[in-house]
Amino acid sequence: MQYFPPALEKLTEQFAKLPGIGSKSAQRLAFYVLSMQDSEAEDFANAIVTAKRAVTCCPVCQNLTQGDGPCGICASPKRDHTVVCVVAEPKDVVAFERMREYNGLYHVLHGVISPMNHVGPDDLKIRELVQRVTQGTLQEVIMATNPDTEGEATAMYLSRLLKPFGVKITRLAYGIPVGGHLEYADDATLMRALEGRREM
Amino acid sequence: MQYFPPALEKLTEQFAKLPGIGSKSAQRLAFYVLSMQDSEAEDFANAIVTAKRAVTCCPVCQNLTQGDGPCGICASPKRDHTVVCVVAEPKDVVAFERMREYNGLYHVLHGVISPMNHVGPDDLKIRELVQRVTQGTLQEVIMATNPDTEGEATAMYLSRLLKPFGVKITRLAYGIPVGGHLEYADDATLMRALEGRREM
Repeated sequence: MQYFPPALEKLTEQFAKLPGIGSKSAQRLAFYVLSMQDSEAEDFANAIVTAKRAVTCCPVCQNLTQGDGPCGICASPKRDHTVVCVVAEPKDVVAFERMREYNGLYHVLHGVISPMNHVGPDDLKIRELVQRVTQGTLQEVIMATNPDTEGEATAMYLSRLLKPFGVKITRLAYGIPVGGHLEYADDATLMRALEGRREM
Repeated sequence: MQYFPPALEKLTEQFAKLPGIGSKSAQRLAFYVLSMQDSEAEDFANAIVTAKRAVTCCPVCQNLTQGDGPCGICASPKRDHTVVCVVAEPKDVVAFERMREYNGLYHVLHGVISPMNHVGPDDLKIRELVQRVTQGTLQEVIMATNPDTEGEATAMYLSRLLKPFGVKITRLAYGIPVGGHLEYADDATLMRALEGRREM
């Protein structure tokens, strides 16, 4: 039985579709929208439609961008166009950019290979990466997928796929995180840190 | 510095304005919108604008409704039009309706008197309630605001305001909740339960 006006119920349903929003939260959000100014609610609605329409993938690196043509990073003459960092998600690009140390390009896969979730190589932007490698300007491809099972498998898959093109393929270092405590480090991380030890 | 396309940042900001949604959640929701079908995103945007436009307050009970004229409850000839239950929020009407035992009308105040939050009697739908009482058809007004300080104060204020009109004013019973445990009941509740004891 519907206890609220249909338009309110419908808005609640829409909010409930969002990830991490349960029916109680959805109701609270719908009520909040009712309490907004008319103009605020319209701004919100417009932001949804505009984001959906205006945000596209860069034809080169597949990162999110706005407008036609390559994104700001791909188009910048200041960046090193011989190195590409392969990441799973646009959020990972943000993590690298925040560091302000990396000056190469990116390639966003938009996911990782995950048979459990029915995501195969064809569902990712792998074809586009191969195309970039075959163009010959790239000298190094840095695999920067997450250090979990699926990220690992994806990095391994790509490294085997790209090696025949004669490009240098690297993987981010594993080890204990800066500021971390040895006593809390898990065995796998500690083992990798030991394996990857460097002379000082 | 903006790391994402402006339209995406803007949508994230809009989500971050919602209550209980922090910046990380807002970003997650904005990304989810990007992953929606075009039609889904438009439905979502439309639901916001439609809810804001179509949902109004019933001119009689002030509960949320859609369309002009009194709401379904106020217009129903099956309901007892001599009893009105005064609640703070539309959600409270839902709690009563879910019970399926109450057959009277409602009056939604849209808040409680709260000097801390600068909400005075004039900010609530109290004038409309007084108007209903002066019309003379009401025989009983049930105060069903929450049993907390502000709900209590509001009930007290209204009862003093309405008594001169010769209408019967009642308050929901206090006591131990059904299924509750005496050992966990707080002192105030237990005291009220004792005070309100009835012969069996």
